[in-house]
Amino acid sequence: MNPITQTQALDVPSAIIQRRSIKSFKPDPISPELLQKLVELTVAAPSSYNLQDWRIVIVQDETQKSALSAAAFNQQQIIQAPVTFVFAAEPHGERDLTTILEQGLATGAWNEQVVNYFKTAVPQFQAGLGDKRREYAIKDAMIAATHLVLAAESLGLSTNFMNGWMEDKVKEVIGAADSDLAIAVLVPVGYAAQPRLNPGRLPLSANVFVDRISQPYQN
Amino acid sequence: MNPITQTQALDVPSAIIQRRSIKSFKPDPISPELLQKLVELTVAAPSSYNLQDWRIVIVQDETQKSALSAAAFNQQQIIQAPVTFVFAAEPHGERDLTTILEQGLATGAWNEQVVNYFKTAVPQFQAGLGDKRREYAIKDAMIAATHLVLAAESLGLSTNFMNGWMEDKVKEVIGAADSDLAIAVLVPVGYAAQPRLNPGRLPLSANVFVDRISQPYQN
Repeated sequence: MNPITQTQALDVPSAIIQRRSIKSFKPDPISPELLQKLVELTVAAPSSYNLQDWRIVIVQDETQKSALSAAAFNQQQIIQAPVTFVFAAEPHGERDLTTILEQGLATGAWNEQVVNYFKTAVPQFQAGLGDKRREYAIKDAMIAATHLVLAAESLGLSTNFMNGWMEDKVKEVIGAADSDLAIAVLVPVGYAAQPRLNPGRLPLSANVFVDRISQPYQN
Repeated sequence: MNPITQTQALDVPSAIIQRRSIKSFKPDPISPELLQKLVELTVAAPSSYNLQDWRIVIVQDETQKSALSAAAFNQQQIIQAPVTFVFAAEPHGERDLTTILEQGLATGAWNEQVVNYFKTAVPQFQAGLGDKRREYAIKDAMIAATHLVLAAESLGLSTNFMNGWMEDKVKEVIGAADSDLAIAVLVPVGYAAQPRLNPGRLPLSANVFVDRISQPYQN
């Protein structure tokens, strides 16, 4: 990786430390090339059995942005940001694994034995999830959303994780009202209009432990 | 940021593309300084209202590793890796926000008005979550776990997100059997013993859409 030919992107620790949850955006658009890069880095995230069970809707049309903002208690950040990624998740369930298994074989990542094992293990694991099917799909979607947030930060963009919205209304806006998709999180992406300060973190001993929850981590 | 004095860490896009879910680790320990850095980058993750509602248990004692492995269907990666991060989540509920609000004020990130608003808005939002209290806490924990995974990758370490474990047993191992903590994910961290190949990703048009779920993204 030649530092001259490589895109100048922030290293992970710097992106993590620099990132703030930005709530106001300039109207500046994101170039199609940059958006494409963000999408590719988002779906490069790992998922349970590589199921890639996220459904990502990039909302950018002005009418759609207004409708999505209304579904999110009129938060203006969705109107201001050029795009908002809606992370939906398909609850783990029976589905056709053919393409995923074929790709695993074709890339050499999985051999015949692994693929044959997955053919029974994946449906078995999913069936065993019972009422946690939604939770597991949301976990995968959150991993992907976090990839987007850190990738965007590293490339000069800002974001935030939005939890304040009505799930039914969001599903209606993206045309998924009749599906069993779960909405995991909304992430507006754009160029920050105003910086924000870091509200700080609790001492590590408050929520980090060693071996047992009775032993606070000492730094 | 002087590239000479700065720790050489991978940039975010490279860390995302290079990362694989590693399942076998060398016995090499992680230095206390590096572990400290990982912990700090993990808890730098954002969370709903900055609640930091994760409870992270770093399992490293050999007896504890064996017990945790047993709770995870005897997966050997937990025995092999020098440490495994257990991401537990405290379901959003009534709790003392004093320290978090004081820190927000002290850092200048939040003014009196915001803090007063949070005093009523946060308990209100949490009460409104109803049976989604667990889901929202798990979402925050997954954001932090993903920060760990990408930070570790950027610093030369390997990881994977583990979903295969029995929640009750994991809680027992970390001494949280009687709590209402939810287990979100387990992340072993260490030096890779064997590389793994990328099993590939579906075409973007399969799970990325523009404005509506009926309009596949075209790259």
